[in-house]
Amino acid sequence: MRIDLNSDLGEGFGPWTMGDDASMLDIVSTANIACGFHAGDPDTMRETIRLAKQRRVAIGAHPGYRDLIGFGRRRLPGLSLSEIESLVAYQVGAMAAIAALEDYPMTHVKTHGALGNVCADDDATALAVGRAIKAVDPKLAFMVMPGTATARAAEALGLTPVNEIYADRTYADNFNLSPRSEPGSVIHDPEFLVKRVIEMVSEGCLTSASGKRLEVPIASVCVHGDTPGAVMMAKNLRGALEAAGWTIGSSIQPKA
Amino acid sequence: MRIDLNSDLGEGFGPWTMGDDASMLDIVSTANIACGFHAGDPDTMRETIRLAKQRRVAIGAHPGYRDLIGFGRRRLPGLSLSEIESLVAYQVGAMAAIAALEDYPMTHVKTHGALGNVCADDDATALAVGRAIKAVDPKLAFMVMPGTATARAAEALGLTPVNEIYADRTYADNFNLSPRSEPGSVIHDPEFLVKRVIEMVSEGCLTSASGKRLEVPIASVCVHGDTPGAVMMAKNLRGALEAAGWTIGSSIQPKA
Amino acid sequence: MRIDLNSDLGEGFGPWTMGDDASMLDIVSTANIACGFHAGDPDTMRETIRLAKQRRVAIGAHPGYRDLIGFGRRRLPGLSLSEIESLVAYQVGAMAAIAALEDYPMTHVKTHGALGNVCADDDATALAVGRAIKAVDPKLAFMVMPGTATARAAEALGLTPVNEIYADRTYADNFNLSPRSEPGSVIHDPEFLVKRVIEMVSEGCLTSASGKRLEVPIASVCVHGDTPGAVMMAKNLRGALEAAGWTIGSSIQPKA
Amino acid sequence: MRIDLNSDLGEGFGPWTMGDDASMLDIVSTANIACGFHAGDPDTMRETIRLAKQRRVAIGAHPGYRDLIGFGRRRLPGLSLSEIESLVAYQVGAMAAIAALEDYPMTHVKTHGALGNVCADDDATALAVGRAIKAVDPKLAFMVMPGTATARAAEALGLTPVNEIYADRTYADNFNLSPRSEPGSVIHDPEFLVKRVIEMVSEGCLTSASGKRLEVPIASVCVHGDTPGAVMMAKNLRGALEAAGWTIGSSIQPKA
Repeated sequence: MRIDLNSDLGEGFGPWTMGDDASMLDIVSTANIACGFHAGDPDTMRETIRLAKQRRVAIGAHPGYRDLIGFGRRRLPGLSLSEIESLVAYQVGAMAAIAALEDYPMTHVKTHGALGNVCADDDATALAVGRAIKAVDPKLAFMVMPGTATARAAEALGLTPVNEIYADRTYADNFNLSPRSEPGSVIHDPEFLVKRVIEMVSEGCLTSASGKRLEVPIASVCVHGDTPGAVMMAKNLRGALEAAGWTIGSSIQPKA
Repeated sequence: MRIDLNSDLGEGFGPWTMGDDASMLDIVSTANIACGFHAGDPDTMRETIRLAKQRRVAIGAHPGYRDLIGFGRRRLPGLSLSEIESLVAYQVGAMAAIAALEDYPMTHVKTHGALGNVCADDDATALAVGRAIKAVDPKLAFMVMPGTATARAAEALGLTPVNEIYADRTYADNFNLSPRSEPGSVIHDPEFLVKRVIEMVSEGCLTSASGKRLEVPIASVCVHGDTPGAVMMAKNLRGALEAAGWTIGSSIQPKA
Repeated sequence: MRIDLNSDLGEGFGPWTMGDDASMLDIVSTANIACGFHAGDPDTMRETIRLAKQRRVAIGAHPGYRDLIGFGRRRLPGLSLSEIESLVAYQVGAMAAIAALEDYPMTHVKTHGALGNVCADDDATALAVGRAIKAVDPKLAFMVMPGTATARAAEALGLTPVNEIYADRTYADNFNLSPRSEPGSVIHDPEFLVKRVIEMVSEGCLTSASGKRLEVPIASVCVHGDTPGAVMMAKNLRGALEAAGWTIGSSIQPKA
Repeated sequence: MRIDLNSDLGEGFGPWTMGDDASMLDIVSTANIACGFHAGDPDTMRETIRLAKQRRVAIGAHPGYRDLIGFGRRRLPGLSLSEIESLVAYQVGAMAAIAALEDYPMTHVKTHGALGNVCADDDATALAVGRAIKAVDPKLAFMVMPGTATARAAEALGLTPVNEIYADRTYADNFNLSPRSEPGSVIHDPEFLVKRVIEMVSEGCLTSASGKRLEVPIASVCVHGDTPGAVMMAKNLRGALEAAGWTIGSSIQPKA
């Protein structure tokens, strides 16, 4: 009965911050850290890694499209698979180097925003991302949404998958996230959110908004760090999981 | 009688190119490749690595200040040593990752432009750069200007130094480059350039503009790739060195 | 018998140049100058304006998407009409200010790359661009492709249109450009290019690749400045037009 | 008995915000809006202008060095006076255009951060900034620190000066700001801050930290918007000024 809580952190840039990373790092067991293309810069990355290391929170690279102003949320058109590989390898290598400076190795990679959405839908893109991860370090785990192209890519390439679910998002029938634009796709009711997460991790089963079920072991639950009330929502979920008998911790612990 | 010729390449960005990299790669034995902060981007880096690999030219990271518009030639003020470390580690790690994609490992690091000038003058900055290199991979060589803080940093940290001289630049008495703004600091006369390089590598001795001498083994000669006539100048120098009995090749050959 | 030749210039950025602007400015009568979002920066803009002013070449703003690395050639998704207005107004205002520094007023606006393609297809976007131009200065002309949404927007908003054709591109049946990816869509044969341009301007008639005809007065012919052979192609076209009795000159002359 | 309160606002970028602009705009009578080089982007500028227009708060351009990651706080070396002119004109023109979109004209220009500090010290730079403002629109006022090169430049060029003091900063003997690094240079005690501001505006006299006095009419007081407690500090100062009989309002009211 062990479950990981992960959050996307280090999403500031230069003078700007986003969310309350220190508080989130007191709650989660894994941090996905922006690598400079949609957010983040070498110093923000390093500071986030320091805060994570102090709390023994596992760290991973969180690469996105090169799109600071759009925060990596726009599907940039026209990228070849070779360009996807380069984009991801660059960011993962940069992250590995900053982690090396802090002597705290990264454990995994998780794609950000629109790149993540494209990967979930498109096998070729997901495989390109996977090849980039593997080239940098084949021991890095690949955090994936079960039932999507990302999960298939991890399997095809022999990368260790970390199956994650989103605490506050509903699923389409292909087990990609329902678009934010769809009413009800973001869950705001804390009680319902907690109940649903505990059901999914306990039963090992994702359920789409329309009721379609996917039985799969779940290793991690993603909580958002950049929304109002994010810290309270995450703390609440952690408390409820612990009360239900779960231990919070990454399955891919960083070396001590 | 083996001497390396190195050049700073991959200095385009997106749609823009600089110099004739393919031709330069037919001449030099080592390429220092821009890593995205003063020039370069993941795809330009990758293409440059491909061209180098085809010719078995050794590759290294060429990190600079984050200053695209100034091409890394301005001494950015106010960076802490921690920021220097992060800046360099990020770029070196990114380069290592793109090299991994092409299965052609990098051999070394050489600082670019103003960062290089600051390193030559300032021990604390040179040591910060050296620590970043060492954190990413202690087997990476550090290309240095003999007699400067950069050379001292390599020695202090146990990084393999690669002593380089500049084919077309004169030296101040501290063996840093004479500023470009100083008349005569850039050598344009091809005959004098060749004669001077062959003297320096044969005698193992740097001579400053004022005649101060530094006896030191020289491993590499830097030729510029981005000036008019660069390719012809480099070809001419290579020919003259070979005629004088030298074999052109990196002392830090990449693995085959 | 007066016809304008226009070219997209000032498309360098920082240390990088693109094409041979000085030579092109000896040939064309109008320059569309990049404004910093897909290419260009304040100093490149200013230098291009200086070169144009010396030759009494008319100048206009050439705004594009914020996409340096993609050179404004990618259709960035998800921009609202308000964002299109802001994007264009910002660039046009910046250009007007740099022109004011050189005391050489701009005459018009022409959209760049993917933004231009979207405008040609989509009335709402073309109107948003037109509103931005009008807000900055309603006397600015709007360079448009006849038969497209851009031309309709100019008319609807009361902006002076400048009808342009592309010397080296074929047209689809909606009089947007045939995609570059389509075989034959870029014309490389100089004789055919010249013959076709002279026919179109003489007859006042655009002809699509499939033979569909649009009768419309043509005020300007766009010649590319950034391709190999661009200068020779443009010089050749100018010579042929003059030989056929045409005077080369902008219909929207800058104030002396 | 009329005094302006001004604040530097619109200092977000893309997904990132800085400070609580809406609250500050309920307190101040003038907003200096970042123009995209050290902070700000076309949409952030526009939204800030909208909020200002709703409250009839005067707006001005707040140009800075091109240095997003350093927030314009680093003195970028090596810029020629021509480059300073281009840098400022570009940003002021862009701001004027966005203001035109909202049909709410800007009234003035105030330099940001390191550019402001350099202007206060260096007559040549201050004159270059002034020339850029004048080229864009000679009716724009120039917000200046009395006793500095900026004030001299406004006078020399015939630009309307707006004399401002900083509510929370002490002055060096040349009436530039004492460096933030100097102990006591930033005033945190609200009572002392209020007392000092009321004294300075009432007496028409700046006093340096060492007691040197400069008699000069003061038109505006700058309150910071991006520090913790900024809104409360500003509200407190406004209340105290009103209690002392002052009316808060810009002397350079935008047209209705």
